[in-house]
Amino acid sequence: MTAVSSIDVRTGTPVAEVAAESTAADVDAVCVRAERAFPALEALGRAGRAAMLRAMADELEARRATLTEVADRESALGETRLNGELTRTCFQLRLFAEVIEDGGYLEATIDHAGDTAMGPRPDVRRMLVPLGPVGVFGASNFPFAFSVPGGDTASALATGCPVVVKAHPAHPGTSQLAYEALDAGARASGAPEGTVGIVHGQEGGSLLVRHPAIKAVGFTGSLRGGRALFDLASARPDPIPFYGELGSLNPLVVTPAAAAERAEEIAKGLIGSFTLGVGQFCTKPGLAFVPAGEAAERLRAAMTAGVAELGAGWMLSAGIHDAFEAGAARLRETAGVSAVASTPDGNGSQGPTASSPVVFAARAGELSGAVLEECFGPVTVLAEYADEEELFAALAGLSGALTATVHIGDGETGLPERLAAALRDRAGRLIWNGFPTGVAVAWAMNHGGPWPATTNALHTSVGGTAVRRFVRPVAWQDAPQSVLPEELRDGPVSVPRRVDGTLEPSA
Amino acid sequence: MTAVSSIDVRTGTPVAEVAAESTAADVDAVCVRAERAFPALEALGRAGRAAMLRAMADELEARRATLTEVADRESALGETRLNGELTRTCFQLRLFAEVIEDGGYLEATIDHAGDTAMGPRPDVRRMLVPLGPVGVFGASNFPFAFSVPGGDTASALATGCPVVVKAHPAHPGTSQLAYEALDAGARASGAPEGTVGIVHGQEGGSLLVRHPAIKAVGFTGSLRGGRALFDLASARPDPIPFYGELGSLNPLVVTPAAAAERAEEIAKGLIGSFTLGVGQFCTKPGLAFVPAGEAAERLRAAMTAGVAELGAGWMLSAGIHDAFEAGAARLRETAGVSAVASTPDGNGSQGPTASSPVVFAARAGELSGAVLEECFGPVTVLAEYADEEELFAALAGLSGALTATVHIGDGETGLPERLAAALRDRAGRLIWNGFPTGVAVAWAMNHGGPWPATTNALHTSVGGTAVRRFVRPVAWQDAPQSVLPEELRDGPVSVPRRVDGTLEPSA
Repeated sequence: MTAVSSIDVRTGTPVAEVAAESTAADVDAVCVRAERAFPALEALGRAGRAAMLRAMADELEARRATLTEVADRESALGETRLNGELTRTCFQLRLFAEVIEDGGYLEATIDHAGDTAMGPRPDVRRMLVPLGPVGVFGASNFPFAFSVPGGDTASALATGCPVVVKAHPAHPGTSQLAYEALDAGARASGAPEGTVGIVHGQEGGSLLVRHPAIKAVGFTGSLRGGRALFDLASARPDPIPFYGELGSLNPLVVTPAAAAERAEEIAKGLIGSFTLGVGQFCTKPGLAFVPAGEAAERLRAAMTAGVAELGAGWMLSAGIHDAFEAGAARLRETAGVSAVASTPDGNGSQGPTASSPVVFAARAGELSGAVLEECFGPVTVLAEYADEEELFAALAGLSGALTATVHIGDGETGLPERLAAALRDRAGRLIWNGFPTGVAVAWAMNHGGPWPATTNALHTSVGGTAVRRFVRPVAWQDAPQSVLPEELRDGPVSVPRRVDGTLEPSA
Repeated sequence: MTAVSSIDVRTGTPVAEVAAESTAADVDAVCVRAERAFPALEALGRAGRAAMLRAMADELEARRATLTEVADRESALGETRLNGELTRTCFQLRLFAEVIEDGGYLEATIDHAGDTAMGPRPDVRRMLVPLGPVGVFGASNFPFAFSVPGGDTASALATGCPVVVKAHPAHPGTSQLAYEALDAGARASGAPEGTVGIVHGQEGGSLLVRHPAIKAVGFTGSLRGGRALFDLASARPDPIPFYGELGSLNPLVVTPAAAAERAEEIAKGLIGSFTLGVGQFCTKPGLAFVPAGEAAERLRAAMTAGVAELGAGWMLSAGIHDAFEAGAARLRETAGVSAVASTPDGNGSQGPTASSPVVFAARAGELSGAVLEECFGPVTVLAEYADEEELFAALAGLSGALTATVHIGDGETGLPERLAAALRDRAGRLIWNGFPTGVAVAWAMNHGGPWPATTNALHTSVGGTAVRRFVRPVAWQDAPQSVLPEELRDGPVSVPRRVDGTLEPSA
């Protein structure tokens, strides 16, 4: 049996053995427990599950010191960032409590019996119901917010789906502690045993995706790993939805007017964004289109000067460090690409798994190979365009992304509208005069996008509507009141409903 | 080049050559036209597309006599049924016009900038936007309502997605005529060329699913064919959503109280339902659980007497006829299964592709093999249960279905609630004291269910929310008014919106 060890990423040494890699029997046991928990978890009702989510947030906060300390040793992200991330994670659990209390996510709909142009129609009532146990793969780069206690887990539990998490191997200790906090919150709220489960190890993950009890999977990670698991989910005898967030280049466009107005300010913001968390954000801007000429030179000079002031930062793991350095090397070797900004100390001054930010430049009309793929880490490419024709041709060659960002001039019109039209079908979120890193947890947020940004662009993994991934519609036809969910019964209910075609507010 | 012929199914003779099987170049040309049509179709706006859907319905009605005549020769469904189906198809096009005029399907959401517990939040606005060109595979059994001008086509076009239909080989002439009606409606409404396209042939269908311009697929057909196309869609370099409706057993349960009260009435309704359209409904009840004892004997006797009065009916095609007869033979040979009702004239008295209804009986505790799979055609199996334990154990062994039906006694409680709980996770629609055939086109309808009923149980293919399959969310962050869709701009708009967490009605 292989042990799963917690590694101090700054020293590369094991801290402790956290768990054993899950065997087939382990995965089966935890999935069967989740399956058995499903009816009782749903029966808690929206109010009961909202209380559970809040209890889970409370339990995480009660363990804040230990969680952030262990997470910092395993991820090197620093306690300030990790404290903020834990706060966000708790905020998110509480937002999903509000979402299910609101009840709009149920899409409750009633068509009373009556005569129609098609003849008599029965009484039909529709509502969304939970799918069943959900598998959640934690991400490396957000040990809390996109991992064991993250948005996938919170949104699945909110709807009434038990969750089995697959711990990320880069932070197994954090994962185990977060799991214990969630489990304590579940127990304190009267949720059934098996509401939350955990498995460890790569083979455990692939067994999880194939287990008959699992009805959907949430995943945040690499294109290669995500594609392999998506293929497993799709090849099941009974295929299940796989919500994977994979890779994203997150293009950014600076219009000539914006560059002329504030090249230096944009450069400063871009540096802050592409180096945030040592570049280890899925929304990191990896390709910035800047107009050729004097303004571009100002922007480039500001990038060069700004990056020169930065030092190396610890990467999340030795593997991610090595993959980043290999990716940066590929960029360096790509035809037409030149390095225009780097730090004076080079890489590795802090230790073997630290990396330094670097900026490359290329012509927008000549992008190819590595420039068009995500390189996870502190690197971005400035792509100079001579005119709009070159810009739009380059944009048309881009793959799907989580975000696309546009910097425009004060009061500028024409080009912004054309950029909005060109970018909308290539991204899930369009940011104006800002930067894509930082994903607000809000009702209107969308975090997703066309392939390869995600495996399923129809749904978001962040924000109030993330719950839609784990529910499916059921219709009840001519049903007696006693077999209907309470939200579909006659009389006033505390959810908005569409009744005979008209949207009615919550009573 | 292989010709696609229209076959008179009653005589088995070709009527005319309708088209040539689509080559790779044909499929590419029609998909590229669809891709080019996309921006202009969306730019028609909700009002423009609503007018287009109504114009398409008008064009279909203007061709009613020809359409139903050709469809009757190709499908043998009879002009009465086909007239009703065409009316339904036009009703459906007009319902989707109402759905997009209502605008609730856009899920428009605005979170204004402001301070939150997480710090300052940008202005974020979210709405659903069309995916792009959609491939639609027509079904054999509904040449109008689930084929070229059917619900998949109507819901995709409503959202602004151009559609390329794959004609069903059993009714290519009907498909071509329906395509011409849709195309005429599109042209009359100012929709761009390429709004609707058509391809023929099996290879053309698989090329369609793999074409880079196609962003989603709707399919109604067999488990084998649907699975093969789902696998193609999932294996693309950029996987796309595949909404397939495949096979469904549609279990029906008669409680002891219901059987005691009205065994004969239920038998009569069940005969009507399982023989409707010569059993060629995807919602045909294929397995009916009846309580053992005196009531079951009454029900069985009524089935035997009722079926004996029926004759053979023409099946949709020679292939479907042969598959049904093979399936019925497999049932006959399954251990523990016995025929309890059949027609005196046997099969084939009307001709080589006619089949007669047949009813089998088995013990609920001994269901296996062919009894647990859909047999498309006029057959159903009565499964007798001795007690609730035997009933619930048998229900737990069933695969996912489009529908589940329950007949309960007047005022009965207890068992109905337990059946509702057991059946909900196995079906997309629960019918009470009725029959599953007949799917009302309404806001609250759900037509879908867990595998193998559909490849994606999260969405319906019938009813107002069928549009959700062809739209994806996009968020605009800190966007100037001029780049926002009009539904997300400041001020009153004619769609319901969630603003800062509160649902607001349409202005």
